[in-house]
Amino acid sequence: MAAPEIERLIKLIGRLPGLGPRSARRAALSLMKHRESLMRPLLEVLEACRDKVAPCRRCGNLDTSDPCAVCTDPQRVKSVVCVVQEVEDLWAMERSSAYRGQFHVLGGTLSALDGRGPDNLAIGSLLARVEAGGIEEVILALGATVDGQTTAHYLAERLRPFACSITRLAHGLPLGGELNYLDQGTLDAALQARARLD
Amino acid sequence: MAAPEIERLIKLIGRLPGLGPRSARRAALSLMKHRESLMRPLLEVLEACRDKVAPCRRCGNLDTSDPCAVCTDPQRVKSVVCVVQEVEDLWAMERSSAYRGQFHVLGGTLSALDGRGPDNLAIGSLLARVEAGGIEEVILALGATVDGQTTAHYLAERLRPFACSITRLAHGLPLGGELNYLDQGTLDAALQARARLD
Repeated sequence: MAAPEIERLIKLIGRLPGLGPRSARRAALSLMKHRESLMRPLLEVLEACRDKVAPCRRCGNLDTSDPCAVCTDPQRVKSVVCVVQEVEDLWAMERSSAYRGQFHVLGGTLSALDGRGPDNLAIGSLLARVEAGGIEEVILALGATVDGQTTAHYLAERLRPFACSITRLAHGLPLGGELNYLDQGTLDAALQARARLD
Repeated sequence: MAAPEIERLIKLIGRLPGLGPRSARRAALSLMKHRESLMRPLLEVLEACRDKVAPCRRCGNLDTSDPCAVCTDPQRVKSVVCVVQEVEDLWAMERSSAYRGQFHVLGGTLSALDGRGPDNLAIGSLLARVEAGGIEEVILALGATVDGQTTAHYLAERLRPFACSITRLAHGLPLGGELNYLDQGTLDAALQARARLD
């Protein structure tokens, strides 16, 4: 009904996560209405990202430099590697700013359902990094899902031969969480891992 | 925290309607992960839209031709003009396919709060179109909001001197609407405009 270019723009925007056909239409119209203030800068930055951003060959983070800014930061601890599923998880860890070590992005989890085996993830490169030495701890910061925990156990098994400690994030109450809204599994985990107050 | 290009991409995507900072981050990552299947085609179609799409000088519709495909369609009735607020409303009318006449996009409503007066809307060009003759009916298809209805009354006043009938969309129950979920205003309007069944 609209011009084919417009229909195609709506369709492509609708393929972004979190956007349905209705919001894609609104976004496309907003772009075409705000040509100078929105469409032109978006085009420029998309081109810049296409030309400059690439995955870090060392840790899998997305950055304009390779190795990435995290890998080359001299202020960061070199002996700890935090293994995450995706780049967004790396960003989440960085936002918390409680962690100042290295990262390794797996690119997902093992998943029998989706047919993802160890060869589809960045596991070989993780083992190579640990084997190269200098790493004292590997933190498996994977999701508390079935696939995430399966992957964590698999990685722990593969990392066992190396002389580094292997840890995972604690399970328990999220801050602000109320007991009567919490699922039983989390409550069990929080109870088992209870800490002394004295 | 991420590269400045990435942060800028997230910020710009976050300025699209319906996208918060969280979904903007997901969308930006999705673009960078699916470079060939998503980012490249999106760049191409954005460039095509930037270069080709412009508002129709006659009706305000967005299209790759000027006058637009609706204005130049020989199959469409020329003597009826449907006045809508925005291009998305024109598209909504076109999706319903119950209407086969001309359009006129106002570009919004009168709004004392937002400081939009008659000069900020495409009212002069509407009056010129009606004055040029050949138009028998102007349908004011504006939103059933305070601003929409104020604008409709203002337009009706301005159009009164011309020899054309002025109509508005019916108010009443939306299809599938249940009475006990309906606001009082709609119910009153539906009752007043009740139709005979015999």
